Amino acid sequence: MQNELLDHIHFVLVGTTHPGNIGATARALKTMGLRRLDLVATSVFPSAEATARASGADDLLAAAGRHESLAEALSGCGLVLATSGRSRNIDWPVYAPEEAMALVLRQAEEGADVAIVFGRESSGLSNAELDLCHGMIRIPTDPEFKSLNLAAAAQILSYELRRQYLRQSPAGLPPEDRVPPAEVAHMDRFYAELQTCLAEIGYFDPEQPRLLMRRLKRLFNRSRMDLNEYNIMMGIIRAARKAAARKD
Amino acid sequence: MQNELLDHIHFVLVGTTHPGNIGATARALKTMGLRRLDLVATSVFPSAEATARASGADDLLAAAGRHESLAEALSGCGLVLATSGRSRNIDWPVYAPEEAMALVLRQAEEGADVAIVFGRESSGLSNAELDLCHGMIRIPTDPEFKSLNLAAAAQILSYELRRQYLRQSPAGLPPEDRVPPAEVAHMDRFYAELQTCLAEIGYFDPEQPRLLMRRLKRLFNRSRMDLNEYNIMMGIIRAARKAAARKD
Repeated sequence: MQNELLDHIHFVLVGTTHPGNIGATARALKTMGLRRLDLVATSVFPSAEATARASGADDLLAAAGRHESLAEALSGCGLVLATSGRSRNIDWPVYAPEEAMALVLRQAEEGADVAIVFGRESSGLSNAELDLCHGMIRIPTDPEFKSLNLAAAAQILSYELRRQYLRQSPAGLPPEDRVPPAEVAHMDRFYAELQTCLAEIGYFDPEQPRLLMRRLKRLFNRSRMDLNEYNIMMGIIRAARKAAARKD
Repeated sequence: MQNELLDHIHFVLVGTTHPGNIGATARALKTMGLRRLDLVATSVFPSAEATARASGADDLLAAAGRHESLAEALSGCGLVLATSGRSRNIDWPVYAPEEAMALVLRQAEEGADVAIVFGRESSGLSNAELDLCHGMIRIPTDPEFKSLNLAAAAQILSYELRRQYLRQSPAGLPPEDRVPPAEVAHMDRFYAELQTCLAEIGYFDPEQPRLLMRRLKRLFNRSRMDLNEYNIMMGIIRAARKAAARKD
């Protein structure tokens, strides 16, 4: 298929409450040659309203992935970017749509699955959900009126993707000889192992012990480890645990 | 007003039949800092559905120009571009959104009013209406699914306008309230401490021991630690060294 590259790119809707938004998002994606829609914890689907607003993109609705949790939806993804209207005081890199979609296309060219995540219409994503993401996309809305509809945001990002996709020559950039990225499932194992290790070596964050793992996740997610680096870090953690155990 | 430049740019809807599209277009424009909406030969407005879909952009609806004919709506405009999904055999220049919005901004900078015209949902613009236009904008939809919603097309073009508008404004995005970054001197201390720690816990890279520190530096440099994160990582290393020492 011509669109193999774009088929690595998933638009993931979390906890959407208006079925019309799901349908309109499917339509937005399909106009831009995208096909992968994933729905997380959505109780309003399937729905006649979604089908109506999809306006011919109901094949995307029928093929949409259904997931209980965001972690489940992301398990095979090497890059995860979340959209955000808010400018919080956070530790993620924040990308403009142009930069973000350039990153997304580069990852897809390397054969990795990529997710662009959209939170609930009213409340966005939870902190635990944000912890699964490598970076944020901020669409440059007018500061005085940021009320961008969910499907409109999906339309902007899928347009930006297609714009860059069409601009690059068929030859494109030479594929780099790169190690594949650590996927979300790897990172889950890494964080679980790290947490156990921290307890065993007796480390706790003196100021905010409960925030420790969140902070570490943000730090390591930003670096977007490849599999070699993942193996090195897992090896270091195992060595630290072994060293700590020897004291007994 | 900051937006004087954008206020030269009119989005003109001709013969729209779904009031929801008028409301959603108003919302799309307002999120991107645009304010000028003009309605031509529309019998479905005002409407409760338009107001609902405007979702807070009803000031644009209330201020919208109402016109009997497209010619009347365009009377003050120096540049008129029409959107088209079709690639007809016509005599107009056809622009991609990027080129078209660059033209639009250049005209607006020169103080001229500019119109971006959207035809009827089903039948587009008549030939007489097309005769009033200087060029066509073709949004690069997938050839196999061109069914772009009217408000979605307005969202794409207003985003493209804002993207180019912000790129040329010197201020750019507002600075974020962030913790200062770890400086090179901090990172030198971190890597020295990490190397000592790895020796003490007995870790070495089984494949390429001499490359280990280089690999770790690349990994951690990519994440661009801030000072809080630096302090956490230094604390973890100290705890690991202490745990390893206890064995003796």
